[in-house]
Amino acid sequence: MYDLVIIGGGPGGLCAGIYATRLRLKTILIEKELIGGQIALTDVIENYPGFPSISGMALVEKFEEHARSFGLEIKMAGVESIASDGDTKVLQTTDGEIRTKAVILATGAKPSRLGVPNEVEMTGKGVSYCATCDGPFFRNLTVMVVGGGDTALKEANYLAKIASKVYLVHRRDQFRGEKIQQERVEEAENIEILRSHILKEVVGDKVVEGVVVEDLKTGESRDIALEGVFIFVGIIPTTDFVNVEKDESGFIISDSKMGTSEPGIFVAGDCRDTPLLQVATAVGDGAIAAYTAEAYIESLVNVTPRTSKNPAKLV
Amino acid sequence: MYDLVIIGGGPGGLCAGIYATRLRLKTILIEKELIGGQIALTDVIENYPGFPSISGMALVEKFEEHARSFGLEIKMAGVESIASDGDTKVLQTTDGEIRTKAVILATGAKPSRLGVPNEVEMTGKGVSYCATCDGPFFRNLTVMVVGGGDTALKEANYLAKIASKVYLVHRRDQFRGEKIQQERVEEAENIEILRSHILKEVVGDKVVEGVVVEDLKTGESRDIALEGVFIFVGIIPTTDFVNVEKDESGFIISDSKMGTSEPGIFVAGDCRDTPLLQVATAVGDGAIAAYTAEAYIESLVNVTPRTSKNPAKLV
Repeated sequence: MYDLVIIGGGPGGLCAGIYATRLRLKTILIEKELIGGQIALTDVIENYPGFPSISGMALVEKFEEHARSFGLEIKMAGVESIASDGDTKVLQTTDGEIRTKAVILATGAKPSRLGVPNEVEMTGKGVSYCATCDGPFFRNLTVMVVGGGDTALKEANYLAKIASKVYLVHRRDQFRGEKIQQERVEEAENIEILRSHILKEVVGDKVVEGVVVEDLKTGESRDIALEGVFIFVGIIPTTDFVNVEKDESGFIISDSKMGTSEPGIFVAGDCRDTPLLQVATAVGDGAIAAYTAEAYIESLVNVTPRTSKNPAKLV
Repeated sequence: MYDLVIIGGGPGGLCAGIYATRLRLKTILIEKELIGGQIALTDVIENYPGFPSISGMALVEKFEEHARSFGLEIKMAGVESIASDGDTKVLQTTDGEIRTKAVILATGAKPSRLGVPNEVEMTGKGVSYCATCDGPFFRNLTVMVVGGGDTALKEANYLAKIASKVYLVHRRDQFRGEKIQQERVEEAENIEILRSHILKEVVGDKVVEGVVVEDLKTGESRDIALEGVFIFVGIIPTTDFVNVEKDESGFIISDSKMGTSEPGIFVAGDCRDTPLLQVATAVGDGAIAAYTAEAYIESLVNVTPRTSKNPAKLV
């Protein structure tokens, strides 16, 4: 029986682990794939305060070492479901059942990929899913933005202030993003809009050297030389396995103390309805979630174990 | 004319500076006393992810260097007032007027001091105002908690799990804190409650060696040998100079995107109604505040300067 299970080993989960172990909660962190999550796949991080330039993997190793130094237990397994048995949460994992008083969901989110050739291979080598993270690396270079929603338009406008030229590729004729952002991309002198176009292939060996795009109206393809490709076609939070209140995109709805709709289940980082998906914000969330979880655990009165044979409530 | 003025040079302000300069906002940070704020006065920090143990001053120097590396301008001055002139904020400082499109308040908060002999001299040497920060340094030692509100009781219970013995000193006969926390301090085997007592003096040369307490009912004083003194008699946010909506204690009321009641004025860190005053949470706030400020600045339409001679609205 644990006090706290943290699901997910990215910056939010590891920071929650640092705080929870210091709060002397009996805590285990469960990660299904890779300690560090998305950030471990990031080439260089320049905006986590204290580290002007560090690889994602190196930063994550520091976080993990930090959390383990206070005694955080880490287990590699996938969580399949969370049920409630009175005040106890019962987790079914790929490596058996775990019982705990509280849970912090820090499962993160993944950018949707286009699924075009060379996209995965060039990720971190010119292909990016985050302009805030990687935009400054493309000063006075040429980049392409793929997408037609709010994020794509906003980031195209942002990148136009840094890059010498921005191609904006959208598969449809009309953008979905805010009108004001549409006006800006249309007015920007260094943004070239390619409507009804798709990105067919990323070209490059060690780094991105160009792309192939197709005009959907004519069926013609052409090569464009450039250094960066920013893809904004959606973000998918890893929240399928848990039944707490979510927004229309699947992000978990959270209050200012990182509480969810379910007592005893807290949240941190990219899987919640955060305004900004960053290492700096995830660690803040993790600290708050651990602190709130501790207060919740302290508030639990000792109750007699249930005698009812009703099945545990699935959450 | 700046895009953004950040008031306060602690972790929240410096992180906002890192993000704002990377968002290419013309930004200045104004600090009146000491870059780093409260954290620069903290002996050792163990819970900012990535740095298992670092002095407050060293961490702050890293943050400042990081922010300056992106071109953040820093000015030493006090801000006396903020007024609105249309969409422009006009700051009166001890070193002249500054005009800006947006402001981030990151002015922090200070713990109330008792004002007893040796308290200031022993701060960071056994006298602390933060159990989350410093509690783990007192494992199996004897500490004293001063105060009778929620924080004092909660932190006494927390410290009782770490320290071998906790004295809880309160000047009144009755505690003000939550009933459940009162019950816990009363039930804890290693908490000795001294009601109607005051801390008169902290004793120690290089580190805390003991205290002198006075029983207010008998007027008698006595010495107690111990290693740590935790003082929880209130926290005062530095928010006097600005007229935005605040809670009863003066903390600025913020939304999830770090907005305040005044358009164009944003907030980060300990001066807002945060659930947790920590470096990790302040940097998260700072990143969000910069991002939201940038969106606000982008949303400003170009308006003709006001011709009215009405005085600017004081905020």
